[in-house]
Amino acid sequence: MSKLTCQISVSLDGYVAGPAQGPNDPLGEGGMRLHEWLFAGEGPELQVDIKNCGAFIMGRNMFGPGRGAWDESWHGWWGGNPYHQPVFVLTHHERETLPVAGDAPFHFVTTGMKSALEQARAVAGDRDVMVAGGAETVRQYLAAGLLDELLLTVTPVLLRTGERLLVDVGDPTFEQVETIVSPSVTHLRYRVTYRADPAESSAAGAELSYAETVGA
Amino acid sequence: MSKLTCQISVSLDGYVAGPAQGPNDPLGEGGMRLHEWLFAGEGPELQVDIKNCGAFIMGRNMFGPGRGAWDESWHGWWGGNPYHQPVFVLTHHERETLPVAGDAPFHFVTTGMKSALEQARAVAGDRDVMVAGGAETVRQYLAAGLLDELLLTVTPVLLRTGERLLVDVGDPTFEQVETIVSPSVTHLRYRVTYRADPAESSAAGAELSYAETVGA
Repeated sequence: MSKLTCQISVSLDGYVAGPAQGPNDPLGEGGMRLHEWLFAGEGPELQVDIKNCGAFIMGRNMFGPGRGAWDESWHGWWGGNPYHQPVFVLTHHERETLPVAGDAPFHFVTTGMKSALEQARAVAGDRDVMVAGGAETVRQYLAAGLLDELLLTVTPVLLRTGERLLVDVGDPTFEQVETIVSPSVTHLRYRVTYRADPAESSAAGAELSYAETVGA
Repeated sequence: MSKLTCQISVSLDGYVAGPAQGPNDPLGEGGMRLHEWLFAGEGPELQVDIKNCGAFIMGRNMFGPGRGAWDESWHGWWGGNPYHQPVFVLTHHERETLPVAGDAPFHFVTTGMKSALEQARAVAGDRDVMVAGGAETVRQYLAAGLLDELLLTVTPVLLRTGERLLVDVGDPTFEQVETIVSPSVTHLRYRVTYRADPAESSAAGAELSYAETVGA
Protein backbone atom coordinates (compact mmCIF):
# COMPACT_ATOMS: atom_id res chain seq x y z
CA MET A 1 0.00 0.00 0.00
CA SER A 2 1.19 3.50 -0.73
CA LYS A 3 2.38 5.74 2.11
CA LEU A 4 0.56 8.41 4.03
CA THR A 5 3.07 11.23 4.29
CA CYS A 6 3.22 14.78 5.56
CA GLN A 7 5.58 17.68 5.01
CA ILE A 8 5.31 20.58 7.40
CA SER A 9 7.48 23.52 8.43
CA VAL A 10 8.24 23.85 12.10
CA SER A 11 9.92 26.67 13.97
CA LEU A 12 13.00 26.06 16.10
CA ASP A 13 10.77 26.25 19.14
CA GLY A 14 8.30 23.71 17.79
CA TYR A 15 5.44 25.72 16.33
CA VAL A 16 3.80 25.13 12.96
CA ALA A 17 1.61 28.24 13.08
CA GLY A 18 1.61 31.47 15.00
CA PRO A 19 -1.11 32.63 17.37
CA ALA A 20 -4.41 34.25 16.33
CA GLN A 21 -5.01 32.48 13.04
CA GLY A 22 -7.78 34.14 11.06
CA PRO A 23 -8.97 35.38 7.68
CA ASN A 24 -6.17 37.93 7.40
CA ASP A 25 -3.54 35.75 8.99
CA PRO A 26 -4.11 32.13 7.95
CA LEU A 27 -0.83 31.00 9.49
CA GLY A 28 -1.20 33.14 12.59
CA GLU A 29 0.99 36.04 13.64
CA GLY A 30 4.48 35.50 12.30
CA GLY A 31 3.50 32.16 10.79
CA MET A 32 4.45 33.21 7.28
CA ARG A 33 8.06 33.30 8.45
CA LEU A 34 7.91 29.50 8.47
CA HIS A 35 7.48 29.53 4.72
CA GLU A 36 9.96 32.18 3.63
CA TRP A 37 12.35 29.45 2.48
CA LEU A 38 9.69 28.26 0.05
CA PHE A 39 9.07 31.69 -1.39
CA ALA A 40 12.82 32.16 -1.66
CA GLY A 41 12.85 29.24 -4.08
CA GLU A 42 14.41 26.71 -1.73
CA GLY A 43 13.29 23.12 -1.49
CA PRO A 44 12.83 22.18 -5.16
CA GLU A 45 13.88 18.65 -4.12
CA LEU A 46 10.64 18.43 -2.16
CA GLN A 47 8.77 18.58 -5.43
CA VAL A 48 9.61 14.90 -5.81
CA ASP A 49 7.55 14.22 -2.71
CA ILE A 50 4.67 16.34 -3.94
CA LYS A 51 4.77 14.83 -7.43
CA ASN A 52 4.67 11.34 -5.98
CA CYS A 53 1.35 12.05 -4.28
CA GLY A 54 -1.93 11.29 -5.99
CA ALA A 55 -4.19 12.91 -3.41
CA PHE A 56 -4.04 15.29 -0.46
CA ILE A 57 -5.96 15.60 2.79
CA MET A 58 -6.42 18.81 4.77
CA GLY A 59 -8.42 20.04 7.70
CA ARG A 60 -11.12 22.59 7.19
CA ASN A 61 -9.09 25.16 9.08
CA MET A 62 -6.45 24.94 6.38
CA PHE A 63 -8.99 25.26 3.59
CA GLY A 64 -10.55 28.39 5.00
CA PRO A 65 -11.35 30.51 8.04
CA GLY A 66 -15.10 29.76 8.06
CA ARG A 67 -16.88 27.59 10.60
CA GLY A 68 -20.32 26.00 10.67
CA ALA A 69 -22.38 25.77 7.48
CA TRP A 70 -20.37 26.49 4.35
CA ASP A 71 -20.19 29.83 2.62
CA GLU A 72 -20.24 28.37 -0.88
CA SER A 73 -18.48 31.41 -2.27
CA TRP A 74 -15.31 30.34 -0.42
CA HIS A 75 -13.08 28.41 -2.82
CA GLY A 76 -9.95 28.18 -0.68
CA TRP A 77 -7.10 30.56 0.02
CA TRP A 78 -5.27 29.89 -3.21
CA GLY A 79 -7.50 30.84 -6.14
CA GLY A 80 -7.13 27.32 -7.47
CA ASN A 81 -5.78 23.97 -6.29
CA PRO A 82 -2.10 24.40 -5.39
CA TYR A 83 -1.60 20.63 -5.18
CA HIS A 84 -2.92 19.82 -8.67
CA GLN A 85 -4.36 16.56 -7.35
CA PRO A 86 -7.68 15.84 -5.65
CA VAL A 87 -7.82 17.36 -2.16
CA PHE A 88 -10.05 15.86 0.53
CA VAL A 89 -11.14 18.44 3.09
CA LEU A 90 -12.21 17.15 6.51
CA THR A 91 -15.37 18.88 7.69
CA HIS A 92 -18.51 18.31 9.72
CA HIS A 93 -20.65 20.15 7.19
CA GLU A 94 -21.62 18.63 3.87
CA ARG A 95 -20.66 20.37 0.71
CA GLU A 96 -20.70 19.35 -2.93
CA THR A 97 -17.39 18.65 -4.59
CA LEU A 98 -15.84 21.93 -5.70
CA PRO A 99 -14.44 21.72 -9.23
CA VAL A 100 -11.39 23.79 -10.11
CA ALA A 101 -11.07 25.02 -13.68
CA GLY A 102 -8.37 23.05 -15.44
CA ASP A 103 -7.27 21.36 -12.24
CA ALA A 104 -8.23 18.66 -9.72
CA PRO A 105 -11.21 19.30 -7.43
CA PHE A 106 -11.72 19.73 -3.71
CA HIS A 107 -13.86 17.02 -2.10
CA PHE A 108 -15.49 17.52 1.29
CA VAL A 109 -15.56 14.54 3.64
CA THR A 110 -17.97 14.41 6.57
CA THR A 111 -17.44 10.73 7.36
CA GLY A 112 -14.21 11.06 9.29
CA MET A 113 -10.47 10.93 8.88
CA LYS A 114 -10.26 7.22 8.10
CA SER A 115 -12.91 7.55 5.43
CA ALA A 116 -11.04 10.52 3.96
CA LEU A 117 -7.89 8.41 3.83
CA GLU A 118 -9.72 5.57 2.10
CA GLN A 119 -11.16 7.92 -0.48
CA ALA A 120 -7.80 9.59 -1.02
CA ARG A 121 -6.08 6.23 -1.44
CA ALA A 122 -8.74 5.13 -3.91
CA VAL A 123 -7.99 8.05 -6.23
CA ALA A 124 -4.22 8.02 -5.58
CA GLY A 125 -3.82 4.39 -6.65
CA ASP A 126 -0.16 3.42 -6.35
CA ARG A 127 0.87 6.94 -5.46
CA ASP A 128 1.24 8.32 -1.96
CA VAL A 129 -1.28 10.40 -0.07
CA MET A 130 -0.09 13.51 1.75
CA VAL A 131 -1.61 15.23 4.74
CA ALA A 132 -1.29 18.87 3.73
CA GLY A 133 -2.14 20.19 7.20
CA GLY A 134 -2.89 21.89 9.44
CA ALA A 135 -1.40 20.86 12.71
CA GLU A 136 -4.55 19.38 14.20
CA THR A 137 -5.09 17.16 11.19
CA VAL A 138 -1.50 15.93 11.27
CA ARG A 139 -1.83 15.23 14.98
CA GLN A 140 -4.98 13.20 14.40
CA TYR A 141 -3.38 10.97 11.79
CA LEU A 142 -0.36 10.48 14.06
CA ALA A 143 -2.50 9.71 17.09
CA ALA A 144 -4.52 7.21 15.03
CA GLY A 145 -1.34 5.42 13.99
CA LEU A 146 -1.95 6.13 10.30
CA LEU A 147 0.88 8.45 9.28
CA ASP A 148 3.80 6.53 7.72
CA GLU A 149 6.23 9.36 7.18
CA LEU A 150 6.82 12.86 8.50
CA LEU A 151 9.04 15.36 6.70
CA LEU A 152 9.80 18.18 9.11
CA THR A 153 11.27 21.35 7.67
CA VAL A 154 13.18 22.91 10.55
CA THR A 155 13.01 26.65 10.04
CA PRO A 156 15.32 28.93 12.03
CA VAL A 157 12.70 31.23 13.47
CA LEU A 158 11.22 31.54 16.93
CA LEU A 159 7.45 31.98 17.13
CA ARG A 160 7.25 31.78 20.96
CA THR A 161 3.58 30.89 20.91
CA GLY A 162 1.01 29.44 18.56
CA GLU A 163 0.25 25.92 17.47
CA ARG A 164 2.66 23.16 18.45
CA LEU A 165 2.80 20.07 16.27
CA LEU A 166 3.92 17.13 18.38
CA VAL A 167 1.54 17.35 21.30
CA ASP A 168 -1.06 14.67 22.08
CA VAL A 169 0.01 12.46 19.21
CA GLY A 170 0.06 9.16 21.07
CA ASP A 171 3.25 7.13 21.16
CA PRO A 172 4.71 7.01 17.66
CA THR A 173 8.31 6.00 17.01
CA PHE A 174 10.34 8.18 14.66
CA GLU A 175 13.29 6.90 12.69
CA GLN A 176 15.43 9.35 10.75
CA VAL A 177 15.64 8.08 7.17
CA GLU A 178 16.85 11.11 5.24
CA THR A 179 18.13 14.64 5.78
CA ILE A 180 17.81 17.18 2.97
CA VAL A 181 19.84 20.34 3.42
CA SER A 182 18.59 23.59 1.92
CA PRO A 183 20.44 26.88 2.18
CA SER A 184 18.41 28.26 5.06
CA VAL A 185 16.45 25.27 6.39
CA THR A 186 16.86 21.52 6.83
CA HIS A 187 14.28 18.88 5.97
CA LEU A 188 14.27 15.88 8.30
CA ARG A 189 12.48 12.81 7.00
CA TYR A 190 11.26 10.31 9.57
CA ARG A 191 9.65 6.93 9.14
CA VAL A 192 6.85 6.69 11.68
CA THR A 193 5.90 3.39 13.25
CA TYR A 194 3.65 2.47 16.11
CA ARG A 195 4.39 0.01 18.87
CA ALA A 196 1.17 -1.89 18.40
CA ASP A 197 -2.23 -1.56 16.84
CA PRO A 198 -4.12 0.23 19.64
CA ALA A 199 -7.18 -1.99 19.14
CA GLU A 200 -5.15 -5.22 19.18
CA SER A 201 -2.99 -4.26 22.13
CA SER A 202 -5.91 -3.31 24.33
CA ALA A 203 -7.68 -6.52 23.33
CA ALA A 204 -4.58 -8.56 24.18
CA GLY A 205 -4.31 -6.74 27.47
CA ALA A 206 -7.93 -7.52 28.28
CA GLU A 207 -7.40 -11.19 27.46
CA LEU A 208 -4.29 -11.38 29.57
CA SER A 209 -5.93 -9.88 32.61
CA TYR A 210 -8.90 -12.18 32.06
CA ALA A 211 -6.57 -15.20 32.00
CA GLU A 212 -4.87 -14.01 35.17
CA THR A 213 -8.18 -13.57 36.89
CA VAL A 214 -9.28 -17.05 35.90
CA GLY A 215 -5.93 -18.55 36.90
CA ALA A 216 -6.32 -17.00 40.34
CA MET B 1 37.33 37.29 19.91
CA SER B 2 36.62 33.59 20.09
CA LYS B 3 33.04 32.32 19.93
CA LEU B 4 30.69 31.31 22.70
CA THR B 5 29.08 28.13 21.42
CA CYS B 6 26.71 25.47 22.67
CA GLN B 7 25.86 21.96 21.55
CA ILE B 8 22.72 20.42 22.97
CA SER B 9 20.42 17.52 22.09
CA VAL B 10 16.78 18.35 21.66
CA SER B 11 13.81 16.05 21.24
CA LEU B 12 11.50 16.34 18.24
CA ASP B 13 9.01 18.05 20.52
CA GLY B 14 11.52 20.56 21.79
CA TYR B 15 12.72 19.24 25.14
CA VAL B 16 16.33 19.04 26.29
CA ALA B 17 15.58 17.11 29.48
CA GLY B 18 12.72 15.01 30.78
CA PRO B 19 10.62 15.82 33.83
CA ALA B 20 11.60 15.10 37.42
CA GLN B 21 15.34 15.63 37.20
CA GLY B 22 17.10 14.37 40.31
CA PRO B 23 20.04 12.45 41.75
CA ASN B 24 19.01 9.19 40.08
CA ASP B 25 17.79 10.79 36.89
CA PRO B 26 20.02 13.75 36.07
CA LEU B 27 18.42 14.21 32.65
CA GLY B 28 14.89 13.62 33.89
CA GLU B 29 12.58 10.77 32.99
CA GLY B 30 13.39 9.59 29.50
CA GLY B 31 16.06 12.24 29.11
CA MET B 32 18.82 9.70 28.47
CA ARG B 33 17.08 8.86 25.20
CA LEU B 34 18.33 12.22 23.93
CA HIS B 35 21.89 10.94 24.18
CA GLU B 36 21.59 7.41 22.84
CA TRP B 37 23.16 8.56 19.55
CA LEU B 38 26.25 9.58 21.48
CA PHE B 39 26.56 6.27 23.28
CA ALA B 40 26.02 4.51 19.95
CA GLY B 41 29.22 6.17 18.75
CA GLU B 42 27.60 8.69 16.45
CA GLY B 43 28.76 12.26 16.14
CA PRO B 44 32.54 11.89 16.08
CA GLU B 45 32.58 14.96 13.83
CA LEU B 46 31.37 16.97 16.82
CA GLN B 47 34.69 16.25 18.49
CA VAL B 48 36.10 19.01 16.32
CA ASP B 49 33.81 21.45 18.10
CA ILE B 50 34.75 20.11 21.52
CA LYS B 51 38.45 20.09 20.71
CA ASN B 52 38.28 23.69 19.57
CA CYS B 53 37.04 24.81 22.97
CA GLY B 54 39.45 25.91 25.66
CA ALA B 55 36.91 26.24 28.47
CA PHE B 56 33.36 25.22 29.34
CA ILE B 57 30.56 26.79 31.37
CA MET B 58 27.76 24.90 33.07
CA GLY B 59 24.97 25.59 35.50
CA ARG B 60 25.08 24.10 38.96
CA ASN B 61 22.12 21.86 38.10
CA MET B 62 24.24 20.19 35.46
CA PHE B 63 27.17 19.72 37.80
CA GLY B 64 25.09 18.03 40.47
CA PRO B 65 21.71 17.61 42.11
CA GLY B 66 22.57 19.52 45.29
CA ARG B 67 21.25 22.95 46.23
CA GLY B 68 22.31 25.47 48.82
CA ALA B 69 25.68 25.17 50.54
CA TRP B 70 28.01 22.74 48.85
CA ASP B 71 28.48 19.15 49.84
CA GLU B 72 32.23 19.14 49.20
CA SER B 73 32.21 15.40 48.66
CA TRP B 74 30.30 15.94 45.42
CA HIS B 75 32.79 15.99 42.54
CA GLY B 76 30.33 15.94 39.62
CA TRP B 77 28.43 13.17 37.89
CA TRP B 78 31.33 11.97 35.82
CA GLY B 79 34.10 10.80 38.12
CA GLY B 80 36.43 13.24 36.41
CA ASN B 81 36.22 16.11 33.97
CA PRO B 82 34.61 14.85 30.76
CA TYR B 83 35.57 18.03 28.89
CA HIS B 84 39.30 17.88 29.68
CA GLN B 85 39.39 21.67 29.85
CA PRO B 86 38.61 24.04 32.71
CA VAL B 87 34.91 24.07 33.55
CA PHE B 88 33.29 27.11 35.16
CA VAL B 89 30.25 26.18 37.25
CA LEU B 90 27.69 28.93 37.90
CA THR B 91 26.57 28.94 41.51
CA HIS B 92 25.46 31.24 44.30
CA HIS B 93 27.54 29.39 46.87
CA GLU B 94 31.27 29.79 47.07
CA ARG B 95 33.48 26.78 46.69
CA GLU B 96 37.19 26.33 46.21
CA THR B 97 38.38 25.23 42.81
CA LEU B 98 38.08 21.46 42.56
CA PRO B 99 41.17 19.87 41.05
CA VAL B 100 40.78 16.73 38.95
CA ALA B 101 43.64 14.25 38.98
CA GLY B 102 45.45 14.40 35.67
CA ASP B 103 42.85 16.69 34.14
CA ALA B 104 41.56 20.26 34.13
CA PRO B 105 39.74 21.56 37.21
CA PHE B 106 36.23 22.74 37.99
CA HIS B 107 35.99 26.38 39.03
CA PHE B 108 32.97 27.74 40.85
CA VAL B 109 31.79 31.22 39.90
CA THR B 110 29.54 33.25 42.19
CA THR B 111 29.92 36.54 40.38
CA GLY B 112 27.44 35.89 37.56
CA MET B 113 27.24 34.61 34.03
CA LYS B 114 29.19 37.46 32.43
CA SER B 115 31.98 37.06 34.90
CA ALA B 116 32.04 33.31 34.22
CA LEU B 117 32.31 34.03 30.51
CA GLU B 118 35.17 36.48 31.08
CA GLN B 119 37.04 33.95 33.20
CA ALA B 120 36.42 31.20 30.68
CA ARG B 121 37.63 33.38 27.82
CA ALA B 122 40.73 34.29 29.77
CA VAL B 123 41.80 30.66 30.06
CA ALA B 124 40.56 29.66 26.58
CA GLY B 125 42.66 32.29 24.81
CA ASP B 126 42.09 32.01 21.08
CA ARG B 127 39.91 28.96 21.47
CA ASP B 128 36.14 28.95 21.78
CA VAL B 129 34.14 28.69 24.97
CA MET B 130 31.24 26.26 25.11
CA VAL B 131 28.14 26.39 27.28
CA ALA B 132 27.82 22.76 28.30
CA GLY B 133 24.31 23.20 29.73
CA GLY B 134 21.84 22.79 31.11
CA ALA B 135 18.86 24.36 29.49
CA GLU B 136 18.49 27.26 31.91
CA THR B 137 22.11 28.26 31.47
CA VAL B 138 21.84 28.14 27.69
CA ARG B 139 18.67 30.23 27.85
CA GLN B 140 20.39 32.84 29.99
CA TYR B 141 23.31 33.27 27.61
CA LEU B 142 20.86 33.53 24.71
CA ALA B 143 18.67 36.03 26.54
CA ALA B 144 21.73 38.09 27.38
CA GLY B 145 22.76 38.21 23.74
CA LEU B 146 26.05 36.44 24.44
CA LEU B 147 25.76 33.10 22.62
CA ASP B 148 27.34 33.23 19.15
CA GLU B 149 26.48 29.76 17.92
CA LEU B 150 24.00 27.03 18.74
CA LEU B 151 24.45 23.46 17.54
CA LEU B 152 21.16 21.65 17.99
CA THR B 153 21.19 17.88 17.75
CA VAL B 154 17.67 16.97 16.67
CA THR B 155 16.93 13.59 18.18
CA PRO B 156 13.92 11.57 16.98
CA VAL B 157 12.28 10.99 20.32
CA LEU B 158 9.22 12.50 21.96
CA LEU B 159 9.53 13.41 25.63
CA ARG B 160 6.10 15.09 25.89
CA THR B 161 7.08 17.06 28.96
CA GLY B 162 10.18 18.29 30.70
CA GLU B 163 12.48 21.19 30.05
CA ARG B 164 12.09 23.17 26.84
CA LEU B 165 15.11 24.98 25.48
CA LEU B 166 13.93 27.95 23.43
CA VAL B 167 11.55 29.63 25.83
CA ASP B 168 12.16 33.10 27.26
CA VAL B 169 15.37 33.60 25.33
CA GLY B 170 14.71 37.12 24.13
CA ASP B 171 14.76 37.86 20.44
CA PRO B 172 17.80 36.19 18.89
CA THR B 173 18.10 35.64 15.16
CA PHE B 174 19.21 32.19 14.00
CA GLU B 175 20.95 31.60 10.71
CA GLN B 176 21.58 28.05 9.56
CA VAL B 177 25.28 27.77 8.73
CA GLU B 178 25.86 24.00 8.65
CA THR B 179 23.96 20.72 8.81
CA ILE B 180 25.79 17.59 9.94
CA VAL B 181 23.98 14.33 9.26
CA SER B 182 24.51 11.38 11.56
CA PRO B 183 22.85 7.99 11.07
CA SER B 184 20.06 8.55 13.58
CA VAL B 185 20.19 12.29 14.35
CA THR B 186 20.94 15.55 12.59
CA HIS B 187 23.05 18.39 13.97
CA LEU B 188 21.89 21.87 12.96
CA ARG B 189 24.40 24.64 13.41
CA TYR B 190 23.07 28.17 13.71
CA ARG B 191 24.86 31.48 13.93
CA VAL B 192 23.07 33.55 16.54
CA THR B 193 22.86 37.30 16.26
CA TYR B 194 20.89 39.91 18.13
CA ARG B 195 18.93 42.83 16.78
CA ALA B 196 20.45 45.35 19.15
CA ASP B 197 23.39 45.52 21.49
CA PRO B 198 21.99 43.72 24.51
CA ALA B 199 24.77 44.82 26.82
CA GLU B 200 22.69 47.64 28.27
CA SER B 201 19.19 46.26 27.94
CA SER B 202 18.89 42.59 28.72
CA ALA B 203 22.17 41.37 30.22
CA ALA B 204 21.37 42.75 33.63
CA GLY B 205 17.92 41.23 33.41
CA ALA B 206 19.38 37.88 32.54
CA GLU B 207 21.67 37.96 35.54
CA LEU B 208 18.72 38.82 37.69
CA SER B 209 16.77 35.95 36.21
CA TYR B 210 19.61 33.54 36.96
CA ALA B 211 19.59 34.62 40.56
CA GLU B 212 15.84 34.32 40.77
CA THR B 213 15.31 31.03 39.02
CA VAL B 214 18.25 28.86 39.90
CA GLY B 215 18.40 29.68 43.57
CA ALA B 216 21.46 27.51 43.70
